[in-house]
Amino acid sequence: MLDYKLLSALATVIECGGFERAGEALGLSQSAVSQRIKALEVRLGQPVLVRHPQLAATPAGQRLLNHYQRVCLLERELGQALPTLEVASPRLRIALNADSLVTWWASAVTDFCRREEVLMDLVVEDQDVGLKRLRDGDVAACLCASDQPIAGARCVPLGSMTYHPMATPEYAADHFPDGPCEAAFRRAPAIVYGPNDQLQHRFLAQFGYHGPFPYHLCPESEGFVRLASAGMGYGMMPMIQVRDAVRRGELISLAPQHALEVPLYWHFWRHSGELMERLTRELSALRLGEASG
Amino acid sequence: MLDYKLLSALATVIECGGFERAGEALGLSQSAVSQRIKALEVRLGQPVLVRHPQLAATPAGQRLLNHYQRVCLLERELGQALPTLEVASPRLRIALNADSLVTWWASAVTDFCRREEVLMDLVVEDQDVGLKRLRDGDVAACLCASDQPIAGARCVPLGSMTYHPMATPEYAADHFPDGPCEAAFRRAPAIVYGPNDQLQHRFLAQFGYHGPFPYHLCPESEGFVRLASAGMGYGMMPMIQVRDAVRRGELISLAPQHALEVPLYWHFWRHSGELMERLTRELSALRLGEASG
Repeated sequence: MLDYKLLSALATVIECGGFERAGEALGLSQSAVSQRIKALEVRLGQPVLVRHPQLAATPAGQRLLNHYQRVCLLERELGQALPTLEVASPRLRIALNADSLVTWWASAVTDFCRREEVLMDLVVEDQDVGLKRLRDGDVAACLCASDQPIAGARCVPLGSMTYHPMATPEYAADHFPDGPCEAAFRRAPAIVYGPNDQLQHRFLAQFGYHGPFPYHLCPESEGFVRLASAGMGYGMMPMIQVRDAVRRGELISLAPQHALEVPLYWHFWRHSGELMERLTRELSALRLGEASG
Repeated sequence: MLDYKLLSALATVIECGGFERAGEALGLSQSAVSQRIKALEVRLGQPVLVRHPQLAATPAGQRLLNHYQRVCLLERELGQALPTLEVASPRLRIALNADSLVTWWASAVTDFCRREEVLMDLVVEDQDVGLKRLRDGDVAACLCASDQPIAGARCVPLGSMTYHPMATPEYAADHFPDGPCEAAFRRAPAIVYGPNDQLQHRFLAQFGYHGPFPYHLCPESEGFVRLASAGMGYGMMPMIQVRDAVRRGELISLAPQHALEVPLYWHFWRHSGELMERLTRELSALRLGEASG
């Protein structure tokens, strides 16, 4: 049997981002935490943490964390059957794309969290890479654009979000006087979420354009909208995020006929227990994008 | 003299998040990019990149990137004096806190970016840790809460943002019927931005409370507000971000007398050239927080 004190120390170090804070959270000295991590590494015969360039679990450490999290979820079910056990409320670590987090996510999960007394540990990931976190064992579930299930996990479709190339009307008149075309793409500053964000490229490819284009990088969903609203560039945004701005005439779609549908899938480890099944049922009932487009 | 082709390859690999994409951006094969990185490492006698747990520059690599970025800024000034040089528009890499990015940042810098034809590469960092990026040479400037200048950099105060513990009126009635007190802090789910976010702790310390409290983790500024607005928890938010929600009665401050002032400072490398000086003058003229509180 594994020594769960050691796994708990590892989980706390990662969650708190350091040994000193983990010690505070666990009511231990920093050196006691450090000893537990060392004991885990001796048992495993390899490191569970790297300190540079930033504190993070090694692939082996991530496997352990994933196992630990699943055991916590199972313990919680046991605690509901045997309330005198007083099992601590688990924190559900979930990777999701920022666009979901700033739009429909909160209203979809709040009742669930209250009813089940669950705390969430949300990790924001580009929709095309969040799955890697699940595979690495870093999160219990992942909301992303990929429909490829990974071994040991289930994949449930939740619907889709519709992305339009949005800009202010002034920006559109200045930079796209003749509508979307190569000459404009070549010069008009775009806004791109990050190196893994392929939406802008996919939008341009619809017009047969594959060349270079100037762009700002802004890895923050609402900040992205603010930059466009201030007239700094144009970028692909979910219509549900900007609907009010569109109604007020602050933002318009540069190419309503060239919107992109991005599907969303919910991935989670099988045998994570009833709690995850119930959250999954709640999310599947949403049917994202069917009403609002 | 350094071989700037090699530095440019390093910068592109980091910016694009991979060798294959860097190759596409530079019009090179993946193996040509890889050879340039190797040549740089041979010249330096140590690695400039680590591949695990994620692709990142080593401390030595970051020094090189910082130097490269400053040279690009200086080249740009030269390009303005000698337009026939046709120097490419630089991307200004800046670390800033998410709360600034989703509130005042866009309107403060848009004119500057247009006028100077500058593209921005924004990196979102917790306000207490962004400075580390500047010290590591990963960014050209940093907006954060620390007033400690680092060697070789200047530090300019920009004003402050005021944070209140915000929640829905229903949440306040349910979880804080007797106002802020230990019994409520112990049970009411809070929302915390991340392990480095000390605002919640500082708020609780004002009431002499230093014990444990349940919390959701949400590392996304606008997502944070959405979770609170859905009634999932209470959390420290900048008043300028939630002013409309307060006006509409959707969010209230749980303790208006216990707001926290978070100062903001602009740090940038000396000798970065005139462009950075002009951006700094623009930002210093804002006097954040003086009018809006």
